[in-house]
Amino acid sequence: MQALTELTGGLAADAYFDPCRFELELQRIWHRQWIYVGRSQDIPEARAFRTFELGDQRLILVRDDEGRLQAFHNTCRHRGAALCREDQGTLRAGAIVCPYHAWTYSLQGELLRTSSKKHAPGFDTRDHPLYRVAVHEWRGFVFVCFSDRPPPFEQGFEPGLGCIDAWPMEALCTGHRLTKVIECNWKVFWENYNECLHCPAVHPTLSKLVPIYGRGLMDERDDPNWSLHAADPNPKFRGGLRHGAATWSLDGEVTGVPFATIEEEDRRRGALYLTGLPSVFIVGHVDYVRVVRLRPLAAERTELQVEYLFSAETLSQPHFNLRNIVDFTDLVMSEDAAVCELNQRGLHAAPHVGGVVMPEEYAIREFHQWLAIELERV
Amino acid sequence: MQALTELTGGLAADAYFDPCRFELELQRIWHRQWIYVGRSQDIPEARAFRTFELGDQRLILVRDDEGRLQAFHNTCRHRGAALCREDQGTLRAGAIVCPYHAWTYSLQGELLRTSSKKHAPGFDTRDHPLYRVAVHEWRGFVFVCFSDRPPPFEQGFEPGLGCIDAWPMEALCTGHRLTKVIECNWKVFWENYNECLHCPAVHPTLSKLVPIYGRGLMDERDDPNWSLHAADPNPKFRGGLRHGAATWSLDGEVTGVPFATIEEEDRRRGALYLTGLPSVFIVGHVDYVRVVRLRPLAAERTELQVEYLFSAETLSQPHFNLRNIVDFTDLVMSEDAAVCELNQRGLHAAPHVGGVVMPEEYAIREFHQWLAIELERV
Amino acid sequence: MQALTELTGGLAADAYFDPCRFELELQRIWHRQWIYVGRSQDIPEARAFRTFELGDQRLILVRDDEGRLQAFHNTCRHRGAALCREDQGTLRAGAIVCPYHAWTYSLQGELLRTSSKKHAPGFDTRDHPLYRVAVHEWRGFVFVCFSDRPPPFEQGFEPGLGCIDAWPMEALCTGHRLTKVIECNWKVFWENYNECLHCPAVHPTLSKLVPIYGRGLMDERDDPNWSLHAADPNPKFRGGLRHGAATWSLDGEVTGVPFATIEEEDRRRGALYLTGLPSVFIVGHVDYVRVVRLRPLAAERTELQVEYLFSAETLSQPHFNLRNIVDFTDLVMSEDAAVCELNQRGLHAAPHVGGVVMPEEYAIREFHQWLAIELERV
Repeated sequence: MQALTELTGGLAADAYFDPCRFELELQRIWHRQWIYVGRSQDIPEARAFRTFELGDQRLILVRDDEGRLQAFHNTCRHRGAALCREDQGTLRAGAIVCPYHAWTYSLQGELLRTSSKKHAPGFDTRDHPLYRVAVHEWRGFVFVCFSDRPPPFEQGFEPGLGCIDAWPMEALCTGHRLTKVIECNWKVFWENYNECLHCPAVHPTLSKLVPIYGRGLMDERDDPNWSLHAADPNPKFRGGLRHGAATWSLDGEVTGVPFATIEEEDRRRGALYLTGLPSVFIVGHVDYVRVVRLRPLAAERTELQVEYLFSAETLSQPHFNLRNIVDFTDLVMSEDAAVCELNQRGLHAAPHVGGVVMPEEYAIREFHQWLAIELERV
Repeated sequence: MQALTELTGGLAADAYFDPCRFELELQRIWHRQWIYVGRSQDIPEARAFRTFELGDQRLILVRDDEGRLQAFHNTCRHRGAALCREDQGTLRAGAIVCPYHAWTYSLQGELLRTSSKKHAPGFDTRDHPLYRVAVHEWRGFVFVCFSDRPPPFEQGFEPGLGCIDAWPMEALCTGHRLTKVIECNWKVFWENYNECLHCPAVHPTLSKLVPIYGRGLMDERDDPNWSLHAADPNPKFRGGLRHGAATWSLDGEVTGVPFATIEEEDRRRGALYLTGLPSVFIVGHVDYVRVVRLRPLAAERTELQVEYLFSAETLSQPHFNLRNIVDFTDLVMSEDAAVCELNQRGLHAAPHVGGVVMPEEYAIREFHQWLAIELERV
Repeated sequence: MQALTELTGGLAADAYFDPCRFELELQRIWHRQWIYVGRSQDIPEARAFRTFELGDQRLILVRDDEGRLQAFHNTCRHRGAALCREDQGTLRAGAIVCPYHAWTYSLQGELLRTSSKKHAPGFDTRDHPLYRVAVHEWRGFVFVCFSDRPPPFEQGFEPGLGCIDAWPMEALCTGHRLTKVIECNWKVFWENYNECLHCPAVHPTLSKLVPIYGRGLMDERDDPNWSLHAADPNPKFRGGLRHGAATWSLDGEVTGVPFATIEEEDRRRGALYLTGLPSVFIVGHVDYVRVVRLRPLAAERTELQVEYLFSAETLSQPHFNLRNIVDFTDLVMSEDAAVCELNQRGLHAAPHVGGVVMPEEYAIREFHQWLAIELERV
């Protein structure tokens, strides 16, 4: 049992709305950690590109002729113009040409030529490559890191990258994508993600599918009296899907062809979470994968993007029932969005110095500890 | 005669638009004084509630089962979520239940129970009541005060609460309500309220109804030569309504049944003002009461809400002519709103350090003195 | 040849978006230099007025009964109200009367009378004239300067006021006016104005009309090898309009009656530029004059207003073809606007400390030098 046994306070209330704190978190957290961008498939072949924005930083991601992904600030070294106007496309010339004065860069970011007739003494094109950003592809997922010294990639994931080994991530295709803007601080979203005390009141439908959620628990051992029911296979005590349900969907039925490689325990649980703070969580279901990306837009505004990944076989089924999945998970995420906004609205009360972290909210305390360590790192 | 006899300067011009000054005024004035919220009738019976916002502070007002009004910050003590989503309604459970994690509070704000299976040692529900705000009902009007040490209620009114004793305030009903947003600082509105020098140019219609206003005066003795006309009953000198008019309305006629208890002198004047800085003034007319509430929305934006109160008898008249009143007073207030916005627009001129308070504007100087004292109070 | 021969850096990147820097530039540049407002014809006769806004400063320009233009802050000395509500009009009373309390000023700004019955001792109307702003009319163009010590008017123009002597500026009429808002800092616009390296990629149509632009050059001698082509009359080398073209228009044909007084060399060039930093440039063409006014709206937003001036004779032609001119120049300016916005978008990249000024961009360095000197002036 992981329940907190000490009286534990939450974050100072203004950490959720003070614009200076938000700016600090951009610098110390969002610009230092590996940030999820999208799927490798979105930039499929050589010379394809995408742009990506985080705060006021804008990037280009481009696949070079060797098939490697490169990431640069979307900024020309001449006068600072943005290099790509479109969100995505193909660099047919095999080079990045600034639309302003035609400075030309290789797909590795080297300045190949300027448009000037003659250069000033001391001007060396090698001194003016594009501003590079670290990029990493892992199992079909693309991440960037703005820092010069990116942390080890694996280190940023809980419980660990290996936990979703059974899912054929590289081979999956994006079957649907949706975006929501929530009027809350990004940390409010993660706190909500890290506890299920809210499930009975907020997620009645989900609580029917996953009965232990209806008890406000994430996990069997979150119940102080769990040992009384240790032998009880009822999912109300043991966790996992209700009897008869096979996945997270409106009717509990799978959509298309389930992944063959998933072990029985994970089938029973119905959902396996891999968390990559601060920007993503990936949920493996038996028949699909859900990828939720966060982007902080302002101190009190956060964007969510949800991608639904399927096998090619499932996507090509004649009666592929996307709504069975999307309508269910969108309901749950809309419920979460609504309470996150409700949480944000109450935080400004002048006497509210901060809240309380309850015993079942042990994962929120872990989140707060992670946050404190990252904010203190020089 | 109250006219100023010394050369008197106005406020520093940036007091009307500097956001830091605005913030200071919220803290030192708006969060310390009694603020008008609405009518007792708006929260008529036990378990009824309303919310109220001032700046970034949000309150719940709820009538408890003993019929007393209670006011709390709309913030749960657990993680700071807002407790009530709706603007108004009824708490059918007889308790305030947070929609996020179901923490449950009595209507007096005590934390009755959390949703956790077990509490950490040292957690005591008595340490987590709702954040209380002072509330006061007076003759059917509801006021709140954010301060821990609210000032004596009576002290905040000019010329004094007793001045409207003749009006049956408790028994009146709200017959109409309208809201306006004016692009000006709240103090610009009050300055305009405190002088009638602008009446001839700005309020031609009102100046016909109240002839002394057409001379730029609020009161008989504001004229330096008043004694020359001391015996003249002409309302142009003496003040009050034009001959033949009985109230503030388009045609000067009353609407419905006049209040029987009003004395002759107040009938003659046509309007009696009770001022409760910074948030309200109440005007008693012979047949209705007008309540104007201010809320500062930003340094250069203010909301006005106007409530029209009538006797039940008047409201039930078959030919009750609301427009006769509303169209007249709305005309006057729209004229005031337009010049307040005009005043605000001119204040940014770089060389404009501040204005001049003219002799007839003695009530503006009193307003400035009140302001200076309140801003200096620690 | 003016090409830069030293490695030259650009401005610090945040000079283009930091709000504090923007505020400083308003104070040190825009409120000290002569700023172009509009044409004398816009305020044609005595008692006509116009208002003008720059940042949060608002002016009235009024022609007095002697025909002189007067400029004042649009602010009454009493309580700071704006004096004129309309953008333009006629002061029929021959005086400026505040619409709030009827303080009355002469067209020279003297306070003639207040609305008070009596003044406080020490109040002298001579102490309360309108806040005056320097105004200057030159050849039909109206300029203002907010400073108490305006710089010599002639000093602010390159290459010098005399360069457009051959154009009958006083006699011209405004045939068309258009306005654009560009999402860029005002300095980005001027940098773009000061170089033609962008012309080949950005202005294909203009580069056909003025062939040397298609080589990325503004001027014959901007080519390091210009002496090789010194005798070549081809406009590709020598500059000026393509053979067969007579002016800047869609088809190269003039519209209406060309100005008779323009010398052959200026006819050949097709466009003569007079630059008045920071607010205006005037382009003399053989058959019309184009006046482009800038106003900074925010750190990353600038307004352009373009006026097209013609002789009365041209305007009265039965087949006067305005679109031939406007569609051509609007195309060029829209192309410039688009790349200015592109430039602005790239400037926020965290590693982008600043850009490089290339040899052909010598006029940008001059602009930066002018800027540095003006910002340092106490």
